[in-house]
Amino acid sequence: MSKGITPRSQNYSEWYNEIVQKAELADYAPVKGCMVIRPYGYSIWENIQRVMDAKIKATGAQNAYFPLLIPESFLKREAEHVEGFAPECAVVTHGGGKKLEEPLMVRPTSETIICAMFAKWIHSWRDLPYMINQWANVVRWEMRPRLFLRTTEFLWQEGHTCHATREDAEAEALKMLEVYRSFAEDYLAIPVLTGRKSQSEKFAGALETYPIEAMMQDGKALQAGTSHLLSQNFAKAFNIQFQDQDGSLKHIWPTSWGLTTRLIGALVMVHGDDNGLIIPPKIASTNVVIVPIIMKDADNARLLEVCESLRKTIADAGISVNFDARDQYSPGWKFNEWEQKGIPVRIEMGPRDLKNNAAVVVRRDTSEKKTYPLAEVPAAVKTLLDEIQVNLFARAKKYRDENTHEPKSYDEMKKILDEKNGFMRAFWCGEAECEAKIKEETMATVRVIPFDQPKDLKPCLACGHPGKHLAVFAKAY
Amino acid sequence: MSKGITPRSQNYSEWYNEIVQKAELADYAPVKGCMVIRPYGYSIWENIQRVMDAKIKATGAQNAYFPLLIPESFLKREAEHVEGFAPECAVVTHGGGKKLEEPLMVRPTSETIICAMFAKWIHSWRDLPYMINQWANVVRWEMRPRLFLRTTEFLWQEGHTCHATREDAEAEALKMLEVYRSFAEDYLAIPVLTGRKSQSEKFAGALETYPIEAMMQDGKALQAGTSHLLSQNFAKAFNIQFQDQDGSLKHIWPTSWGLTTRLIGALVMVHGDDNGLIIPPKIASTNVVIVPIIMKDADNARLLEVCESLRKTIADAGISVNFDARDQYSPGWKFNEWEQKGIPVRIEMGPRDLKNNAAVVVRRDTSEKKTYPLAEVPAAVKTLLDEIQVNLFARAKKYRDENTHEPKSYDEMKKILDEKNGFMRAFWCGEAECEAKIKEETMATVRVIPFDQPKDLKPCLACGHPGKHLAVFAKAY
Repeated sequence: MSKGITPRSQNYSEWYNEIVQKAELADYAPVKGCMVIRPYGYSIWENIQRVMDAKIKATGAQNAYFPLLIPESFLKREAEHVEGFAPECAVVTHGGGKKLEEPLMVRPTSETIICAMFAKWIHSWRDLPYMINQWANVVRWEMRPRLFLRTTEFLWQEGHTCHATREDAEAEALKMLEVYRSFAEDYLAIPVLTGRKSQSEKFAGALETYPIEAMMQDGKALQAGTSHLLSQNFAKAFNIQFQDQDGSLKHIWPTSWGLTTRLIGALVMVHGDDNGLIIPPKIASTNVVIVPIIMKDADNARLLEVCESLRKTIADAGISVNFDARDQYSPGWKFNEWEQKGIPVRIEMGPRDLKNNAAVVVRRDTSEKKTYPLAEVPAAVKTLLDEIQVNLFARAKKYRDENTHEPKSYDEMKKILDEKNGFMRAFWCGEAECEAKIKEETMATVRVIPFDQPKDLKPCLACGHPGKHLAVFAKAY
Repeated sequence: MSKGITPRSQNYSEWYNEIVQKAELADYAPVKGCMVIRPYGYSIWENIQRVMDAKIKATGAQNAYFPLLIPESFLKREAEHVEGFAPECAVVTHGGGKKLEEPLMVRPTSETIICAMFAKWIHSWRDLPYMINQWANVVRWEMRPRLFLRTTEFLWQEGHTCHATREDAEAEALKMLEVYRSFAEDYLAIPVLTGRKSQSEKFAGALETYPIEAMMQDGKALQAGTSHLLSQNFAKAFNIQFQDQDGSLKHIWPTSWGLTTRLIGALVMVHGDDNGLIIPPKIASTNVVIVPIIMKDADNARLLEVCESLRKTIADAGISVNFDARDQYSPGWKFNEWEQKGIPVRIEMGPRDLKNNAAVVVRRDTSEKKTYPLAEVPAAVKTLLDEIQVNLFARAKKYRDENTHEPKSYDEMKKILDEKNGFMRAFWCGEAECEAKIKEETMATVRVIPFDQPKDLKPCLACGHPGKHLAVFAKAY
């Protein structure tokens, strides 16, 4: 059934590129580094948006929209920020047929332009916390693009908040980290590690970056979302002050947090198999497809009628279902297509099933087939969808746990990373030079420093100096 | 109550700018020509999106996402199109720290990039109609920006479809025009004229442009949405061909259609009064606000409790309601704020109402106040919201009809346009030179050539040559 798809074991990267295109999630755009998100891929993004938008609003943030084009001088006001982002920017130098006096940057992220507006809107402690979210496109020049994973333009939500104290801002950043964790695990069925980034891996302009990190099926890590406690330099550079209850003027404490279309790439890489995608039921735009097995000399009119009636019953039960009655394709062709697209459940019905008043139900995650009396199909499908959601998470977690190692020595860590990747739990001295050396020698970086730290810190696995953290190292996308 | 708002009669343009900002719909951005859509303004856009997205999907179109940056050479492939849009483009000349080999245009509209992808995806008559929609930002350099009405960057949906025949494409363009008309009238309560544009007013690259045109309270016209039958040149320039049922290769027929954040400006200008906005209930994010009248020595705890219970009953009836219990503002201050923001219904409740087990219900459109027993309030509010929706439309239609004229002579038309604006229904020869002369002399353009044309065409009002159409002329935003 996997016609034309390179197996994962042969070339994971090729497999990824092929199924993203064959499943019609996305296509390369005729613009360097950019992609087109096709309707099937966009329907998954719409579901991510629907769930995340409600979660974000439930925290008290409100949606707004800020300009795409940011004056170069704004970016320069926060030193670390401009150093991190300026090299990646697309620059508008001409507009309306004229050369501009000041170049405009296509937003790589919106801290600066949003801070400029916060300074205008925030006056009093009563205005705090001030919580804004934006669904937008951003541009970061990409030299080695990969569909969804790294593209010059991508879509995301970016939250920006202001608080009266560092404690409040830190609590907000951690609250959003938890929102991201629960979304990734409960909806995308992707187990993630949480914690903090090392200083060299954090966001340009953040005091702390809190990521969710997932493991792909090649043992590499993917940062799937980040929440930042920002430096108060943003408040100072843009002069965001408020009058506190005691009458004094103070600078606010900012946070920002974002999730991107990269998550669709993560979905593919965590759950897909050699036959194509597997979309978790809670985020799939279509959960069930019904394929009639049309045969010569059979009562096909009656078959189509019963299939349509089954479709209606399933839809009435609140399950998204597609009846694939197209007559130009064979059942086998259709099975292949819906497997590639990762529809969680397929229902097949042929002349014999019709006679038996039954249907065959096939789950995408395990390929298990079972025949049910027609009347029992909707309930069986409902149960199955829950089971698939749970199974996908359990399977991904089992894979991650099996590929998480606690190497006894730096040599062992190098050997494992060389042979098969995976997450390395290792003590680390916390020094940037040591981290850089590890990266150079193994290509692995500190993905996350987990919040839960052991009481006894052993020496740094790489340099032998006193350990400061237990960190998780891995090669990453 | 209209503290600080310039009356419409004094300066309509000032009035507009002030209420857009005072109601916190939008703010000027620190980037020339751009705006920030604030949460209250964005909540209206979200409601527009929610309704329109469902209507668009119901026609069979699917959402997708195409790149922001378009190679300059793409824009040049369709001669009329590039002539119309190139002068308005923002141009990216540098990316990733280097000068680009080919400049990229920030999309002013996406026909070219989408046509390039259509050519890759469309092969057979079975693929048609191919219907795509995108919610996106676009940039068109604006010399005289106005919040929502004309901004360098704006948000919109742009639909792009391909059809086998010109007839099919024309039917699609007209179907979407009807979707726009019904949305404007049924949800925004804005009466609109439909028809076709003159050749000089149509979209750059269209054979026909079908607009919806609304009248603002200063008698000027605003184009509130357009649907285009595009020239087949797009199909030829990008080589979008399909194999027809007879085996022959044919070029597709394209359409495109769009609605923008400009609609929010139209809402303000059609319904607003000297006290602020009036948002039609069907598109308001909050339909009802409850304001408690706190008095010294009254049982305020009990009052707040009863208000909260009323809020819950109203919310349970499916009506969006806000209980404004803030203690730092007086009731009068709150009345003023919610009037400025155009919340359709206000409920006031003070100690005497509490004693009488009653509440005062005030409608925003007429300022009419009425006291109801508490138990009757939810039903009364529901009825009132329906009445307000109907009344806003009727009021706007009455205004438009009263300001639509059938001048007997060109001099009379010039006189009316000079004195008070309005829509001029006049016979026109159909010649571009005559149209240009009228525009020069009166600033009025052909807003729309209605579909319904009289059988007897009289001579052109301006030049006396044989009339070709009855057209509607007006000054426009």
